[in-house]
Amino acid sequence: MITLTAYSWVPPIVQGLVRDLRVRWALEEAGLPYRVELIDQRNKPADYREWQPWSQVPAYEEDGFRMFESGAIVLHIAEMSPALTPSDPKARARMTSWLFAAINSVEPPLQELVLIDFMHADKDWAKVRRPMVEEFVQRRFKGLAHALGDREYLEGGFTAADLMMASVLRMAARTQLVQEAGLADYLGRCEARPAFQKALAGQMADFKDS
Amino acid sequence: MITLTAYSWVPPIVQGLVRDLRVRWALEEAGLPYRVELIDQRNKPADYREWQPWSQVPAYEEDGFRMFESGAIVLHIAEMSPALTPSDPKARARMTSWLFAAINSVEPPLQELVLIDFMHADKDWAKVRRPMVEEFVQRRFKGLAHALGDREYLEGGFTAADLMMASVLRMAARTQLVQEAGLADYLGRCEARPAFQKALAGQMADFKDS
Repeated sequence: MITLTAYSWVPPIVQGLVRDLRVRWALEEAGLPYRVELIDQRNKPADYREWQPWSQVPAYEEDGFRMFESGAIVLHIAEMSPALTPSDPKARARMTSWLFAAINSVEPPLQELVLIDFMHADKDWAKVRRPMVEEFVQRRFKGLAHALGDREYLEGGFTAADLMMASVLRMAARTQLVQEAGLADYLGRCEARPAFQKALAGQMADFKDS
Repeated sequence: MITLTAYSWVPPIVQGLVRDLRVRWALEEAGLPYRVELIDQRNKPADYREWQPWSQVPAYEEDGFRMFESGAIVLHIAEMSPALTPSDPKARARMTSWLFAAINSVEPPLQELVLIDFMHADKDWAKVRRPMVEEFVQRRFKGLAHALGDREYLEGGFTAADLMMASVLRMAARTQLVQEAGLADYLGRCEARPAFQKALAGQMADFKDS
C-alpha cells in the first residue's frame, strides 16, 4: 500500500499548488491506489522530520520503504508505470532530462517570482528585484516553447516530464507569462487530463476549514 | 564514447563551480572514459540550443543519444555504476531522494544567495533581501546536518547523492555557512576523493586565457 503526506490546511493562495499534488497526479496516471496522511502544518508530528528532513509535504511510503522530494517520488512512480515513461531508452533519457529541467532550471526562478508576488509584492526591494526575475523566467519559458515546438508533449506521448513541467508552469497562473510564451495550450492539455483533475480535486477536498 | 560540453572560459569567480564538474566527477567515480567538447560562452554554436535548451553546459552524448541537465546526467551515470549507487533498492530510493533534495531544496536558495553575493552585493535591494535568503539556506543546512548525523555519507558509502549534495554545498565556499552548520567535515570528505580532485583539475585545465 502507498501512503503520501499532504497538509490538512494551507492559505487559499497556495491551495491547488502544494507539491503533494504532483505525486497524487502521478499515482492517478499510473492507476496505483494510495492513501493520504494529513499533516497539520501548524502542529507537525514530532518525528515527521525523520521521514521528511525539511518537515514539508509530500513524503511517501510504499510497503515500509520511504522517500521524500516530489521529483524523486514522481520519477520512482514513473519507473513503475508505462503510462508515465516511454519504453525506448533514448526517449526515457530525454524524459529524465526534461523532468530535471522542470525542477532545477524552470522552477527556481519561478519560485522566486511567486514568492515575491505572494509575500513581498509591496516591498521596495521586491519592486527592484522583480523585473530581473521575470526576465529570467521569460527566458526559460522561451527555451521551453522553442524545444516543444508544435508537438503536443515533450517526448512523444504524455510522460512524467510533462507532469512535472506542467506542475511548475501552474505556479505562474497569476501572471500572463505562460500565455505570452505560447505555452497556454500545452499547459491546458496537461491540466485537462482526468488524472490531473482527480488529483487536484483530491488535494482541495482534503483541506479542512482553517 | 561519452562526450560532455564545458565552457572554454568563465570569469575566475565561478571557475571550479561550473556544472559540468558534477558530470566529470560522476564519470571519474564510475571510471568511464570521456571527452570534453569546449563551448565558447560568448560565441556558442548556432545549433547548440537543439542539444541544450538553455544554451548552457553541460550537455551529454553517449553513443549518439543525448541528455542535458546535470542532475539527470549524474543519475544516468549512477545507474550504470555500482561505485555511485547502492545495490539495495530501498537504499537506492533514499539516494534518489537526497539527489533531488540537493538540487530542488538546497540549491535554489543557495543559488539565490550566491547570485546576490557575486552580482548584486552593493545594491540596496540585495542588502534587504540577503538576510532572508541566508536564513532559508541555514534552515536547509540544519535539516541536512540533522539527517546526516554522525554518518560519513548520506546513504551507507559514498553515492551520487553525496556527489550532488557536496557539489551544491561548494557554492557556499565564500561564506561560513557550511562550517556553522557543522557540515565542513562532510564536504571535506567528499572533496578529498581522488575522483573529485581529478574532475576539478580537468575543469580548471580546460579554461583558456580569456
